[in-house]
Amino acid sequence: MPTGTDPRFLRSQEAILHAARELLRQGGPAAVTHAQVAERAGVGRATVYRHWPRAELLLMEAMATVPMPFFAEPTVPTRDWLRRELTAMARQLDLDDVRAVSTTLAGTALWDENMDARRAQFAGVLSGRLAAALDDAQTRGEVSLAIPSRHAAAMAIGPMYYRSTIERTPTDPSLIEATIAALGTWS
Amino acid sequence: MPTGTDPRFLRSQEAILHAARELLRQGGPAAVTHAQVAERAGVGRATVYRHWPRAELLLMEAMATVPMPFFAEPTVPTRDWLRRELTAMARQLDLDDVRAVSTTLAGTALWDENMDARRAQFAGVLSGRLAAALDDAQTRGEVSLAIPSRHAAAMAIGPMYYRSTIERTPTDPSLIEATIAALGTWS
Repeated sequence: MPTGTDPRFLRSQEAILHAARELLRQGGPAAVTHAQVAERAGVGRATVYRHWPRAELLLMEAMATVPMPFFAEPTVPTRDWLRRELTAMARQLDLDDVRAVSTTLAGTALWDENMDARRAQFAGVLSGRLAAALDDAQTRGEVSLAIPSRHAAAMAIGPMYYRSTIERTPTDPSLIEATIAALGTWS
Repeated sequence: MPTGTDPRFLRSQEAILHAARELLRQGGPAAVTHAQVAERAGVGRATVYRHWPRAELLLMEAMATVPMPFFAEPTVPTRDWLRRELTAMARQLDLDDVRAVSTTLAGTALWDENMDARRAQFAGVLSGRLAAALDDAQTRGEVSLAIPSRHAAAMAIGPMYYRSTIERTPTDPSLIEATIAALGTWS
């Protein structure tokens, strides 16, 4: 029987993850079943069960293969860094893969503990990095914040997240400028 | 056989919708299956199929029984109306039912045309009502808008939607005041 280091085992694992990610993008989390993944990946159903006995964990791992928007290490001036990061994030939120993963994360987290832990970690990183960059910018005198920095992620990412998932329209530069201006007065 | 006006038919229809709504809240859209709804509603599976041959349509109709956040008819001054409406919306987004419906709408709309039509209608009403109220406030001289009014829904609702579904924290009054201030300069 193939094991964790067997090349055939690794190949089928990769094919299964790839199939699961495609099914998620095209049909949502409900489409990620053992039967559909096996068919799409061209492997037997038993092989899928051997790799992932539970479909929820396969879904989680397939989601983890999608690069999600994050804030890169801050650079100075903070406003330029922020504009660059938010622009990159808006572009990522236009990708079907990223939209599928972020709405699945927000939805499934309501009912699944593991997914909720991942949501919390994701939200915490975004919020922490942005707050730290803005607090530092304020200390350096680059900005006078109009809001507590703990609100910054909601104020900066919320509008483009709403636009992408509820209004389903791409975020244009004027929305990004509006969110940056809403954070405070920039010098 | 019971018909559309038969009281037993209406009673079972109501029990099925109620069960579907509970299952959605507790287990997400994937939990709304004919089998689980029948068991929860205490009716036969055939009865559920008779009312809703397709589970997706039952899910849609169960979602429609959840009162979703909307903007009431605007009153003057616009800022007071907006504060009241956004506060009510934030409270609604704390309800499990509303969170389940809004994340299901955002997610399922990516893969289901009917759901996407409902999402578009929902987004259009919110965006249209808010833009009209703000344009009117600007005409009356109550506000000088800092953003095009087509961005207003994303700027005003986005932060609390992100907070509710990604950060999973209640929206406090300071976040609402920050979003109102971000829309423009109020007289």
